[in-house]
Amino acid sequence: MSVTIRKIAEDLNLAVSTVSKALRDSHEISDETKRRILDYARKLEYIPNPYAGSLKNKTTKNIAVVVPEVADTFFSNAINGIELVARAKGYHVMIYLTHESREREESILQDLRGGRVDGVLISVSQGVGGNSLIHSQLVTELPLIFFDRACDGVETARVLTDDFESSYKATQHLVSRGCREIVFLAAAGELSITRQRREGFLKALGDSGVEKPEKHIVMCSEDDDKSFTVIKNALMDKQAVDGVVCSVEKLAIQAYRVCQTYTLAIPDRIKIIAFSNLQIAGLLAPSMTTVVQPAFAMGEAAATLLFKALAKKLDITKERIVLPSEICERDSTRGTGIFRM
Amino acid sequence: MSVTIRKIAEDLNLAVSTVSKALRDSHEISDETKRRILDYARKLEYIPNPYAGSLKNKTTKNIAVVVPEVADTFFSNAINGIELVARAKGYHVMIYLTHESREREESILQDLRGGRVDGVLISVSQGVGGNSLIHSQLVTELPLIFFDRACDGVETARVLTDDFESSYKATQHLVSRGCREIVFLAAAGELSITRQRREGFLKALGDSGVEKPEKHIVMCSEDDDKSFTVIKNALMDKQAVDGVVCSVEKLAIQAYRVCQTYTLAIPDRIKIIAFSNLQIAGLLAPSMTTVVQPAFAMGEAAATLLFKALAKKLDITKERIVLPSEICERDSTRGTGIFRM
Repeated sequence: MSVTIRKIAEDLNLAVSTVSKALRDSHEISDETKRRILDYARKLEYIPNPYAGSLKNKTTKNIAVVVPEVADTFFSNAINGIELVARAKGYHVMIYLTHESREREESILQDLRGGRVDGVLISVSQGVGGNSLIHSQLVTELPLIFFDRACDGVETARVLTDDFESSYKATQHLVSRGCREIVFLAAAGELSITRQRREGFLKALGDSGVEKPEKHIVMCSEDDDKSFTVIKNALMDKQAVDGVVCSVEKLAIQAYRVCQTYTLAIPDRIKIIAFSNLQIAGLLAPSMTTVVQPAFAMGEAAATLLFKALAKKLDITKERIVLPSEICERDSTRGTGIFRM
Repeated sequence: MSVTIRKIAEDLNLAVSTVSKALRDSHEISDETKRRILDYARKLEYIPNPYAGSLKNKTTKNIAVVVPEVADTFFSNAINGIELVARAKGYHVMIYLTHESREREESILQDLRGGRVDGVLISVSQGVGGNSLIHSQLVTELPLIFFDRACDGVETARVLTDDFESSYKATQHLVSRGCREIVFLAAAGELSITRQRREGFLKALGDSGVEKPEKHIVMCSEDDDKSFTVIKNALMDKQAVDGVVCSVEKLAIQAYRVCQTYTLAIPDRIKIIAFSNLQIAGLLAPSMTTVVQPAFAMGEAAATLLFKALAKKLDITKERIVLPSEICERDSTRGTGIFRM
């Protein structure tokens, strides 16, 4: 049987209201009675209803982490960084998945209004554009921080990576390896990170003397099988693509599948570089050159900022942390491509 | 400014208690007044404090999913299965990570007592043994269902795979491919699935005529780097190990790393089969033969059982669903090994 205030009151021969007030440390109850009630409650291992406590204290000791998915290595690493910080603060982390659906994300945020959590860390789904009413609304009600994927139009703190610069470098890397026909596999949706990575690619291609670089953008789908077909068509085209920049991990996996299925040799026929935090990138056939985001550090930084806002009621709205990504060279971009010229 | 009951009362020139009762659909308030208050509350987009509502209805529309990690593909797939069912029921899924720590798991479960969620789906961490006080306690308070990893001593529903049988088959598979010195990489901890997989291995090895099969168990660590060293020592041993059964995905990754680092050719020198749901197992060098658990279906089954318990107050304690795993043959166990004899 679970221990209730009623049981404590009956056992101690007191009124329910007296026990209730004592447990809330009310001045109406004498110290002696309070001690008697608290000792007995502790003995019975009484657990207060957390929601009742929340009404009083207005803190829940919960933070919400809202992410598109956990199958992507970036998000699972970032969550580990967030958890490390939250645990040290005695907070519980509740993870919510949007599955890249705008509707789902709005419903989750709507539900987070009104006291369920103390703060929110969010990486928005591809379905969310640059602006969103519910995101703007929530920011006025509790601390909310974007990490990696943000709504441009919503004014609050954000922890990002240097997407433009690292995409520029990734493209340059392929050029330096002798690639002449490079395509960019773009993820669906209108996220700022997608746009930044695309812009970095276009700039690098333009700087290397390619005319109309925008013709080298390949728009992929949220659906893996559809992306597979789109990538297959792009790589089997008569243009003889010899370099691929994958803007997200799941597109890199589809690009590898296409090359495996149609025996397009990596790196001899096609070189591939991908934004990915896949731990086993080095075990793939061939090992994959990656642009690695500092996922764990980003999670840590976002959580640290959130607790700063919670503790000191700091205005964090203007905070903007940018952490650099790193290129990790492996076999998928090996060689100079000199034999192909 | 956020809308409160007080504001609604002031605007409509009513008592706060009247508004509060109307919003809780009390019989003390006339239908006409109720309609007037509800219409106005809707117009102002009034959001009830979810915790206040919870005190009254005693339902939260939340379920908790407690898992060791999300970096393992099994868990991320199982979560997707759970979410599919929960979403259809209008429930929110809150994911909690234990990071294989008993202490952390106990703290999370303690926090889930007393009304924060309506039910719990849990895959216990390696640190939790066959029995646990807090798990037993929680089962008496709200519906709790184990999936994949269970406490043997705790009586409640569970959704499992045929760990003994599939480990037996995995071992037989290596024997049929000509392996003569097979080891089993065992995960740390005393979980039932760990034990079942080990027993299946021992039985298969015994049936194939190996004496003292228990000498072929290699105990690994929770720490990746330590496991790497343990596996290296086992594979470089003078016994000339030629077959490896990996009991969990993370050990398979370390086994691959060892073979890559010390150029032990897979499958010619060593054949590897692993319990893993890794989607890209087919893209590894070489592609990896896996025992694939029906992760998504297990998540779906566990969630379906939970909602059955919630809706009909069914006693699900005795339910035990076992879904079969499948062996997916790839290059890491290719060949007959005939040249080695």
